Amino acid sequence: MNATETQQAIDARDTVIIYSGGMDSYTLLREELSKGRLHSSLSFNYGQRHLRELNCVARVCSQFSLPFSFIDLRAVAAVAMHRSVLTVTQRDIPVGHYAADNMKETVVPNRNMIMLSIAIAYAVSHQLKRVVFGAHAGDHTIYPDCRPEFVQTMRVLAQQANWHPIELEAPYLHFTKGEILLQGMTFGVEREDYKDTWTCYKGDSTHACGVCGSCTERLEAFASVGWTDPIPYLPKGK
Amino acid sequence: MNATETQQAIDARDTVIIYSGGMDSYTLLREELSKGRLHSSLSFNYGQRHLRELNCVARVCSQFSLPFSFIDLRAVAAVAMHRSVLTVTQRDIPVGHYAADNMKETVVPNRNMIMLSIAIAYAVSHQLKRVVFGAHAGDHTIYPDCRPEFVQTMRVLAQQANWHPIELEAPYLHFTKGEILLQGMTFGVEREDYKDTWTCYKGDSTHACGVCGSCTERLEAFASVGWTDPIPYLPKGK
Repeated sequence: MNATETQQAIDARDTVIIYSGGMDSYTLLREELSKGRLHSSLSFNYGQRHLRELNCVARVCSQFSLPFSFIDLRAVAAVAMHRSVLTVTQRDIPVGHYAADNMKETVVPNRNMIMLSIAIAYAVSHQLKRVVFGAHAGDHTIYPDCRPEFVQTMRVLAQQANWHPIELEAPYLHFTKGEILLQGMTFGVEREDYKDTWTCYKGDSTHACGVCGSCTERLEAFASVGWTDPIPYLPKGK
Repeated sequence: MNATETQQAIDARDTVIIYSGGMDSYTLLREELSKGRLHSSLSFNYGQRHLRELNCVARVCSQFSLPFSFIDLRAVAAVAMHRSVLTVTQRDIPVGHYAADNMKETVVPNRNMIMLSIAIAYAVSHQLKRVVFGAHAGDHTIYPDCRPEFVQTMRVLAQQANWHPIELEAPYLHFTKGEILLQGMTFGVEREDYKDTWTCYKGDSTHACGVCGSCTERLEAFASVGWTDPIPYLPKGK
Protein backbone atom coordinates (compact mmCIF):
# COMPACT_ATOMS: atom_id res chain seq x y z
CA MET A 1 0.00 0.00 0.00
CA ASN A 2 1.20 3.50 -0.75
CA ALA A 3 0.42 6.43 1.56
CA THR A 4 -2.87 7.27 -0.20
CA GLU A 5 -4.09 3.68 -0.05
CA THR A 6 -3.15 3.45 3.62
CA GLN A 7 -5.14 6.61 4.37
CA GLN A 8 -8.13 5.24 2.42
CA ALA A 9 -8.02 2.00 4.43
CA ILE A 10 -8.01 4.00 7.67
CA ASP A 11 -10.89 6.20 6.47
CA ALA A 12 -12.92 3.06 5.62
CA ARG A 13 -12.89 2.11 9.31
CA ASP A 14 -16.25 3.60 10.16
CA THR A 15 -17.71 1.02 12.57
CA VAL A 16 -17.61 0.28 16.29
CA ILE A 17 -18.72 -3.14 17.54
CA ILE A 18 -20.28 -4.01 20.89
CA TYR A 19 -18.18 -7.04 21.72
CA SER A 20 -19.09 -9.28 24.65
CA GLY A 21 -16.42 -11.93 24.11
CA GLY A 22 -19.07 -14.53 23.23
CA MET A 23 -19.30 -16.55 20.00
CA ASP A 24 -21.93 -14.35 18.32
CA SER A 25 -20.15 -11.03 18.65
CA TYR A 26 -16.81 -12.77 17.91
CA THR A 27 -18.17 -13.95 14.56
CA LEU A 28 -19.52 -10.47 13.83
CA LEU A 29 -16.14 -8.96 14.73
CA ARG A 30 -14.46 -11.30 12.23
CA GLU A 31 -17.03 -10.41 9.56
CA GLU A 32 -16.49 -6.66 10.06
CA LEU A 33 -12.70 -7.15 10.08
CA SER A 34 -12.95 -9.04 6.79
CA LYS A 35 -14.76 -6.03 5.28
CA GLY A 36 -12.10 -3.62 6.55
CA ARG A 37 -14.73 -1.48 8.30
CA LEU A 38 -13.90 -2.04 11.97
CA HIS A 39 -12.52 1.01 13.82
CA SER A 40 -12.69 -0.29 17.40
CA SER A 41 -14.48 -2.44 19.95
CA LEU A 42 -16.50 -1.57 23.07
CA SER A 43 -17.15 -3.94 25.96
CA PHE A 44 -19.15 -3.42 29.13
CA ASN A 45 -18.79 -4.69 32.65
CA TYR A 46 -22.14 -4.38 34.40
CA GLY A 47 -21.25 -6.80 37.17
CA GLN A 48 -21.42 -10.10 35.31
CA ARG A 49 -20.42 -12.97 37.55
CA HIS A 50 -16.97 -13.38 36.03
CA LEU A 51 -14.60 -11.56 33.73
CA ARG A 52 -13.51 -14.57 31.71
CA GLU A 53 -15.35 -13.18 28.65
CA LEU A 54 -13.54 -9.84 29.02
CA ASN A 55 -10.21 -11.70 28.97
CA CYS A 56 -11.33 -13.17 25.63
CA VAL A 57 -12.01 -9.63 24.39
CA ALA A 58 -8.51 -8.43 25.30
CA ARG A 59 -6.84 -11.46 23.69
CA VAL A 60 -8.83 -11.32 20.44
CA CYS A 61 -8.54 -7.54 19.99
CA SER A 62 -4.79 -7.72 20.61
CA GLN A 63 -4.50 -10.55 18.07
CA PHE A 64 -6.12 -8.38 15.39
CA SER A 65 -4.54 -5.06 16.54
CA LEU A 66 -8.01 -3.67 17.09
CA PRO A 67 -8.35 -0.77 19.57
CA PHE A 68 -10.71 -1.74 22.38
CA SER A 69 -12.28 -0.07 25.42
CA PHE A 70 -13.91 -1.49 28.53
CA ILE A 71 -16.64 0.61 30.08
CA ASP A 72 -17.32 -0.07 33.74
CA LEU A 73 -21.05 0.17 34.43
CA ARG A 74 -20.98 -1.43 37.86
CA ALA A 75 -21.85 1.84 39.62
CA VAL A 76 -24.78 2.33 37.22
CA ALA A 77 -25.85 -1.29 37.69
CA ALA A 78 -25.82 -0.96 41.48
CA VAL A 79 -28.34 1.89 41.33
CA ALA A 80 -30.37 1.10 38.23
CA MET A 81 -29.86 -2.41 36.81
CA HIS A 82 -30.48 -4.79 39.68
CA ARG A 83 -33.04 -7.56 40.29
CA SER A 84 -31.27 -9.88 37.87
CA VAL A 85 -29.71 -13.24 38.65
CA LEU A 86 -26.80 -12.37 36.32
CA THR A 87 -25.62 -9.71 38.73
CA VAL A 88 -26.75 -11.22 42.03
CA THR A 89 -24.31 -13.91 43.09
CA GLN A 90 -26.38 -15.25 45.97
CA ARG A 91 -28.93 -16.81 43.63
CA ASP A 92 -28.47 -19.83 41.39
CA ILE A 93 -28.18 -19.50 37.62
CA PRO A 94 -31.14 -21.39 36.12
CA VAL A 95 -30.20 -24.44 34.05
CA GLY A 96 -31.80 -25.68 30.84
CA HIS A 97 -33.01 -24.16 27.62
CA TYR A 98 -33.45 -20.43 27.00
CA ALA A 99 -37.09 -20.83 26.04
CA ALA A 100 -37.92 -21.87 29.57
CA ASP A 101 -39.66 -19.27 31.71
CA ASN A 102 -37.04 -19.35 34.46
CA MET A 103 -34.52 -17.91 31.99
CA LYS A 104 -36.31 -14.59 32.30
CA GLU A 105 -34.48 -14.29 35.61
CA THR A 106 -31.30 -13.65 33.61
CA VAL A 107 -32.66 -10.41 32.13
CA VAL A 108 -30.74 -7.29 33.22
CA PRO A 109 -33.10 -4.25 33.15
CA ASN A 110 -32.69 -2.23 29.95
CA ARG A 111 -29.20 -3.56 29.31
CA ASN A 112 -29.16 -3.22 25.52
CA MET A 113 -30.63 0.28 25.46
CA ILE A 114 -27.91 1.42 27.87
CA MET A 115 -25.07 -0.28 25.98
CA LEU A 116 -26.33 0.89 22.58
CA SER A 117 -26.84 4.47 23.75
CA ILE A 118 -23.23 4.59 24.97
CA ALA A 119 -21.97 2.97 21.75
CA ILE A 120 -23.87 5.59 19.72
CA ALA A 121 -22.26 8.35 21.83
CA TYR A 122 -18.88 6.73 21.15
CA ALA A 123 -19.57 6.66 17.41
CA VAL A 124 -20.55 10.35 17.44
CA SER A 125 -17.50 11.25 19.53
CA HIS A 126 -15.18 9.45 17.08
CA GLN A 127 -17.07 10.59 13.97
CA LEU A 128 -17.86 7.03 12.90
CA LYS A 129 -20.88 5.95 10.82
CA ARG A 130 -21.99 2.62 12.27
CA VAL A 131 -22.61 0.67 15.46
CA VAL A 132 -22.97 -3.12 15.09
CA PHE A 133 -23.98 -5.70 17.67
CA GLY A 134 -24.61 -9.42 17.74
CA ALA A 135 -28.24 -9.90 18.83
CA HIS A 136 -29.60 -13.12 17.31
CA ALA A 137 -32.86 -15.02 16.93
CA GLY A 138 -32.28 -17.30 19.94
CA ASP A 139 -32.42 -14.26 22.23
CA HIS A 140 -35.89 -13.09 21.21
CA THR A 141 -38.05 -15.17 23.50
CA ILE A 142 -36.16 -14.23 26.62
CA TYR A 143 -34.61 -10.78 26.06
CA PRO A 144 -37.13 -8.09 25.08
CA ASP A 145 -34.26 -5.84 24.01
CA CYS A 146 -33.08 -8.33 21.39
CA ARG A 147 -36.42 -8.43 19.54
CA PRO A 148 -36.63 -7.06 15.99
CA GLU A 149 -39.18 -4.38 17.00
CA PHE A 150 -36.81 -3.04 19.67
CA VAL A 151 -33.89 -2.99 17.24
CA GLN A 152 -36.00 -1.23 14.59
CA THR A 153 -37.05 1.56 16.98
CA MET A 154 -33.47 1.89 18.20
CA ARG A 155 -32.32 2.28 14.56
CA VAL A 156 -34.70 5.21 14.12
CA LEU A 157 -33.53 6.76 17.38
CA ALA A 158 -29.85 6.44 16.36
CA GLN A 159 -30.64 8.64 13.35
CA GLN A 160 -32.49 11.27 15.43
CA ALA A 161 -30.57 11.64 18.67
CA ASN A 162 -27.56 13.58 17.41
CA TRP A 163 -26.77 16.01 14.58
CA HIS A 164 -24.45 13.27 13.32
CA PRO A 165 -26.76 10.32 12.42
CA ILE A 166 -25.55 6.81 13.26
CA GLU A 167 -26.48 3.58 11.47
CA LEU A 168 -27.27 0.74 13.84
CA GLU A 169 -27.02 -2.81 12.53
CA ALA A 170 -27.67 -6.23 14.04
CA PRO A 171 -26.90 -8.44 11.03
CA TYR A 172 -27.53 -11.72 12.88
CA LEU A 173 -30.92 -10.66 14.24
CA HIS A 174 -32.73 -13.43 12.37
CA PHE A 175 -29.96 -16.08 12.61
CA THR A 176 -29.83 -19.00 15.01
CA LYS A 177 -26.47 -19.57 16.71
CA GLY A 178 -25.86 -22.45 14.28
CA GLU A 179 -26.46 -20.13 11.33
CA ILE A 180 -24.00 -17.66 12.84
CA LEU A 181 -21.32 -20.40 12.76
CA LEU A 182 -22.18 -21.13 9.10
CA GLN A 183 -21.99 -17.41 8.34
CA GLY A 184 -18.53 -17.24 9.97
CA MET A 185 -17.28 -20.11 7.77
CA THR A 186 -18.05 -18.07 4.64
CA PHE A 187 -15.34 -15.59 5.56
CA GLY A 188 -12.84 -18.07 6.92
CA VAL A 189 -13.57 -18.47 10.63
CA GLU A 190 -12.44 -21.94 11.71
CA ARG A 191 -13.58 -24.18 14.56
CA GLU A 192 -10.40 -23.61 16.60
CA ASP A 193 -10.87 -19.84 16.44
CA TYR A 194 -13.75 -20.17 18.88
CA LYS A 195 -11.40 -21.27 21.66
CA ASP A 196 -11.08 -17.54 22.48
CA THR A 197 -14.80 -17.06 23.03
CA TRP A 198 -16.73 -17.54 26.25
CA THR A 199 -20.50 -17.97 26.56
CA CYS A 200 -21.14 -19.71 29.91
CA TYR A 201 -22.96 -17.77 32.64
CA LYS A 202 -21.33 -19.75 35.43
CA GLY A 203 -18.09 -18.86 37.11
CA ASP A 204 -15.46 -21.59 36.70
CA SER A 205 -12.27 -19.88 35.54
CA THR A 206 -11.20 -22.60 33.09
CA HIS A 207 -14.23 -24.75 32.16
CA ALA A 208 -17.75 -23.93 30.91
CA CYS A 209 -20.57 -25.63 32.82
CA GLY A 210 -22.34 -27.15 29.83
CA VAL A 211 -25.76 -26.92 31.46
CA CYS A 212 -26.78 -23.23 31.75
CA GLY A 213 -29.04 -21.80 29.04
CA SER A 214 -26.15 -20.16 27.30
CA CYS A 215 -24.01 -23.34 27.21
CA THR A 216 -27.00 -25.42 26.08
CA GLU A 217 -27.59 -23.20 23.06
CA ARG A 218 -23.88 -23.01 22.24
CA LEU A 219 -23.45 -26.79 22.31
CA GLU A 220 -26.55 -27.25 20.11
CA ALA A 221 -25.11 -24.74 17.63
CA PHE A 222 -21.76 -26.53 17.34
CA ALA A 223 -23.51 -29.90 17.01
CA SER A 224 -25.75 -28.51 14.26
CA VAL A 225 -22.74 -27.76 12.03
CA GLY A 226 -20.90 -30.98 12.89
CA TRP A 227 -18.19 -29.32 14.98
CA THR A 228 -16.90 -30.10 18.47
CA ASP A 229 -16.77 -26.96 20.59
CA PRO A 230 -13.04 -26.21 21.19
CA ILE A 231 -13.48 -24.83 24.74
CA PRO A 232 -13.21 -27.15 27.79
CA TYR A 233 -16.39 -28.22 29.60
CA LEU A 234 -16.85 -29.60 33.10
CA PRO A 235 -17.74 -33.31 33.20
CA LYS A 236 -21.52 -33.81 33.22
CA GLY A 237 -23.06 -33.62 36.64
CA LYS A 238 -20.28 -31.49 38.19
CA MET B 1 -54.10 9.12 57.43
CA ASN B 2 -54.82 5.61 58.63
CA ALA B 3 -52.57 2.67 57.70
CA THR B 4 -54.50 1.86 54.51
CA GLU B 5 -54.41 5.45 53.29
CA THR B 6 -50.68 5.66 54.05
CA GLN B 7 -50.07 2.53 51.99
CA GLN B 8 -52.15 3.91 49.12
CA ALA B 9 -50.12 7.11 49.15
CA ILE B 10 -46.90 5.11 48.96
CA ASP B 11 -48.27 2.93 46.14
CA ALA B 12 -49.18 6.06 44.17
CA ARG B 13 -45.49 6.99 43.99
CA ASP B 14 -44.85 5.51 40.58
CA THR B 15 -42.53 8.07 38.99
CA VAL B 16 -38.79 8.79 38.85
CA ILE B 17 -37.60 12.20 37.68
CA ILE B 18 -34.34 13.05 35.93
CA TYR B 19 -33.38 16.07 37.99
CA SER B 20 -30.49 18.30 36.91
CA GLY B 21 -30.85 20.93 39.61
CA GLY B 22 -31.87 23.55 37.03
CA MET B 23 -35.09 25.58 37.02
CA ASP B 24 -36.95 23.42 34.47
CA SER B 25 -36.54 20.09 36.23
CA TYR B 26 -37.04 21.81 39.60
CA THR B 27 -40.48 23.02 38.46
CA LEU B 28 -41.30 19.56 37.14
CA LEU B 29 -40.22 18.03 40.45
CA ARG B 30 -42.58 20.37 42.30
CA GLU B 31 -45.42 19.50 39.88
CA GLU B 32 -44.91 15.75 40.38
CA LEU B 33 -44.66 16.22 44.17
CA SER B 34 -47.94 18.14 44.12
CA LYS B 35 -49.56 15.16 42.37
CA GLY B 36 -48.17 12.72 44.96
CA ARG B 37 -46.58 10.59 42.22
CA LEU B 38 -42.87 11.12 42.83
CA HIS B 39 -40.97 8.06 44.08
CA SER B 40 -37.38 9.33 43.70
CA SER B 41 -34.93 11.46 41.77
CA LEU B 42 -31.96 10.57 39.55
CA SER B 43 -29.09 12.93 38.74
CA PHE B 44 -26.06 12.41 36.55
CA ASN B 45 -22.51 13.66 36.71
CA TYR B 46 -20.98 13.35 33.25
CA GLY B 47 -18.12 15.74 33.99
CA GLN B 48 -19.96 19.06 33.95
CA ARG B 49 -17.66 21.91 34.85
CA HIS B 50 -18.96 22.32 38.37
CA LEU B 51 -21.12 20.51 40.85
CA ARG B 52 -23.08 23.51 42.07
CA GLU B 53 -26.23 22.16 40.41
CA LEU B 54 -25.78 18.81 42.18
CA ASN B 55 -25.62 20.66 45.51
CA CYS B 56 -29.00 22.15 44.62
CA VAL B 57 -30.31 18.61 43.99
CA ALA B 58 -29.20 17.40 47.41
CA ARG B 59 -30.68 20.43 49.19
CA VAL B 60 -34.04 20.32 47.41
CA CYS B 61 -34.50 16.55 47.72
CA SER B 62 -33.65 16.71 51.42
CA GLN B 63 -36.15 19.55 51.87
CA PHE B 64 -38.95 17.40 50.40
CA SER B 65 -37.73 14.08 51.91
CA LEU B 66 -37.39 12.68 48.39
CA PRO B 67 -34.95 9.77 47.91
CA PHE B 68 -32.29 10.74 45.36
CA SER B 69 -29.36 9.05 43.62
CA PHE B 70 -26.36 10.46 41.82
CA ILE B 71 -24.97 8.36 38.99
CA ASP B 72 -21.37 9.03 38.09
CA LEU B 73 -20.89 8.79 34.32
CA ARG B 74 -17.46 10.38 34.18
CA ALA B 75 -15.78 7.11 33.19
CA VAL B 76 -18.35 6.64 30.41
CA ALA B 77 -17.93 10.27 29.35
CA ALA B 78 -14.15 9.94 29.13
CA VAL B 79 -14.46 7.09 26.61
CA ALA B 80 -17.67 7.89 24.77
CA MET B 81 -19.04 11.41 25.38
CA HIS B 82 -16.20 13.78 24.59
CA ARG B 83 -15.72 16.58 22.03
CA SER B 84 -18.02 18.88 23.97
CA VAL B 85 -17.13 22.22 25.51
CA LEU B 86 -19.29 21.36 28.55
CA THR B 87 -16.84 18.68 29.59
CA VAL B 88 -13.58 20.17 28.26
CA THR B 89 -12.38 22.83 30.65
CA GLN B 90 -9.63 24.15 28.39
CA ARG B 91 -12.13 25.73 26.01
CA ASP B 92 -14.29 28.77 26.60
CA ILE B 93 -18.04 28.44 27.11
CA PRO B 94 -19.69 30.38 24.27
CA VAL B 95 -21.68 33.43 25.33
CA GLY B 96 -24.98 34.70 23.94
CA HIS B 97 -28.29 33.22 22.93
CA TYR B 98 -28.96 29.49 22.52
CA ALA B 99 -30.16 29.94 18.96
CA ALA B 100 -26.67 30.95 17.89
CA ASP B 101 -24.68 28.34 16.02
CA ASN B 102 -21.78 28.38 18.48
CA MET B 103 -24.09 26.94 21.14
CA LYS B 104 -23.90 23.62 19.30
CA GLU B 105 -20.47 23.31 20.93
CA THR B 106 -22.27 22.66 24.21
CA VAL B 107 -23.85 19.42 22.92
CA VAL B 108 -22.67 16.31 24.76
CA PRO B 109 -22.89 13.30 22.40
CA ASN B 110 -26.06 11.29 22.99
CA ARG B 111 -26.49 12.62 26.53
CA ASN B 112 -30.26 12.29 26.78
CA MET B 113 -30.45 8.79 25.30
CA ILE B 114 -27.88 7.62 27.86
CA MET B 115 -29.58 9.32 30.83
CA LEU B 116 -33.06 8.18 29.77
CA SER B 117 -31.95 4.59 29.18
CA ILE B 118 -30.51 4.45 32.71
CA ALA B 119 -33.62 6.08 34.16
CA ILE B 120 -35.79 3.48 32.38
CA ALA B 121 -33.61 0.71 33.85
CA TYR B 122 -34.06 2.31 37.27
CA ALA B 123 -37.84 2.41 36.81
CA VAL B 124 -37.90 -1.28 35.81
CA SER B 125 -35.63 -2.21 38.73
CA HIS B 126 -37.92 -0.40 41.20
CA GLN B 127 -41.16 -1.50 39.49
CA LEU B 128 -42.24 2.08 38.78
CA LYS B 129 -44.49 3.17 35.90
CA ARG B 130 -43.10 6.49 34.72
CA VAL B 131 -39.94 8.43 33.91
CA VAL B 132 -40.30 12.22 33.59
CA PHE B 133 -37.76 14.78 32.44
CA GLY B 134 -37.72 18.49 31.83
CA ALA B 135 -36.85 18.99 28.14
CA HIS B 136 -38.44 22.22 26.88
CA ALA B 137 -38.99 24.14 23.66
CA GLY B 138 -35.96 26.41 24.06
CA ASP B 139 -33.69 23.37 23.77
CA HIS B 140 -34.93 22.23 20.38
CA THR B 141 -32.77 24.31 18.09
CA ILE B 142 -29.54 23.33 19.78
CA TYR B 143 -30.03 19.87 21.34
CA PRO B 144 -31.17 17.20 18.88
CA ASP B 145 -32.07 14.93 21.79
CA CYS B 146 -34.61 17.44 23.16
CA ARG B 147 -36.67 17.57 19.93
CA PRO B 148 -40.23 16.21 19.94
CA GLU B 149 -39.38 13.55 17.31
CA PHE B 150 -36.59 12.18 19.50
CA VAL B 151 -38.83 12.13 22.58
CA GLN B 152 -41.61 10.40 20.62
CA THR B 153 -39.31 7.60 19.42
CA MET B 154 -37.88 7.24 22.92
CA ARG B 155 -41.43 6.87 24.28
CA VAL B 156 -42.04 3.94 21.92
CA LEU B 157 -38.73 2.38 22.89
CA ALA B 158 -39.51 2.68 26.61
CA GLN B 159 -42.57 0.51 25.99
CA GLN B 160 -40.63 -2.13 24.02
CA ALA B 161 -37.28 -2.54 25.73
CA ASN B 162 -38.36 -4.48 28.82
CA TRP B 163 -41.15 -6.89 29.74
CA HIS B 164 -42.24 -4.15 32.16
CA PRO B 165 -43.29 -1.19 29.92
CA ILE B 166 -42.35 2.31 31.10
CA GLU B 167 -44.17 5.57 30.28
CA LEU B 168 -41.82 8.39 29.37
CA GLU B 169 -43.10 11.95 29.69
CA ALA B 170 -41.61 15.36 28.99
CA PRO B 171 -44.57 17.58 29.94
CA TYR B 172 -42.73 20.85 29.21
CA LEU B 173 -41.59 19.80 25.75
CA HIS B 174 -43.55 22.59 24.06
CA PHE B 175 -43.13 25.21 26.82
CA THR B 176 -40.71 28.12 26.82
CA LYS B 177 -38.81 28.67 30.07
CA GLY B 178 -41.18 31.56 30.84
CA GLU B 179 -44.17 29.25 30.39
CA ILE B 180 -42.53 26.77 32.76
CA LEU B 181 -42.42 29.50 35.44
CA LEU B 182 -46.12 30.25 34.81
CA GLN B 183 -46.89 26.54 35.06
CA GLY B 184 -45.07 26.34 38.41
CA MET B 185 -47.15 29.22 39.79
CA THR B 186 -50.34 27.21 39.19
CA PHE B 187 -49.29 24.69 41.84
CA GLY B 188 -47.73 27.15 44.23
CA VAL B 189 -44.08 27.55 43.30
CA GLU B 190 -42.90 31.01 44.36
CA ARG B 191 -40.13 33.23 43.08
CA GLU B 192 -37.90 32.65 46.12
CA ASP B 193 -38.11 28.86 45.65
CA TYR B 194 -35.85 29.19 42.61
CA LYS B 195 -32.91 30.27 44.81
CA ASP B 196 -32.11 26.54 45.06
CA THR B 197 -31.79 26.07 41.31
CA TRP B 198 -28.69 26.54 39.19
CA THR B 199 -28.60 26.98 35.43
CA CYS B 200 -25.29 28.69 34.59
CA TYR B 201 -22.69 26.74 32.57
CA LYS B 202 -19.80 28.69 34.07
CA GLY B 203 -17.93 27.78 37.20
CA ASP B 204 -18.17 30.51 39.86
CA SER B 205 -19.13 28.80 43.09
CA THR B 206 -21.49 31.54 44.31
CA HIS B 207 -22.59 33.68 41.34
CA ALA B 208 -24.06 32.88 37.93
CA CYS B 209 -22.30 34.56 35.00
CA GLY B 210 -25.38 36.15 33.44
CA VAL B 211 -23.98 35.90 29.91
CA CYS B 212 -23.78 32.23 28.87
CA GLY B 213 -26.62 30.84 26.75
CA SER B 214 -28.19 29.18 29.73
CA CYS B 215 -28.13 32.35 31.90
CA THR B 216 -29.42 34.45 29.00
CA GLU B 217 -32.51 32.26 28.58
CA ARG B 218 -33.09 32.05 32.32
CA LEU B 219 -32.97 35.83 32.77
CA GLU B 220 -35.34 36.31 29.81
CA ALA B 221 -37.77 33.82 31.39
CA PHE B 222 -37.84 35.59 34.75
CA ALA B 223 -38.24 38.98 33.04
CA SER B 224 -41.13 37.62 30.96
CA VAL B 225 -43.16 36.85 34.10
CA GLY B 226 -42.16 40.07 35.89
CA TRP B 227 -39.94 38.37 38.48
CA THR B 228 -36.39 39.13 39.54
CA ASP B 229 -34.28 35.98 39.54
CA PRO B 230 -33.45 35.21 43.21
CA ILE B 231 -29.96 33.80 42.55
CA PRO B 232 -26.88 36.09 42.64
CA TYR B 233 -25.26 37.17 39.36
CA LEU B 234 -21.78 38.53 38.72
CA PRO B 235 -21.70 42.24 37.85
CA LYS B 236 -21.91 42.78 34.07
CA GLY B 237 -18.57 42.56 32.32
CA LYS B 238 -16.91 40.41 35.01
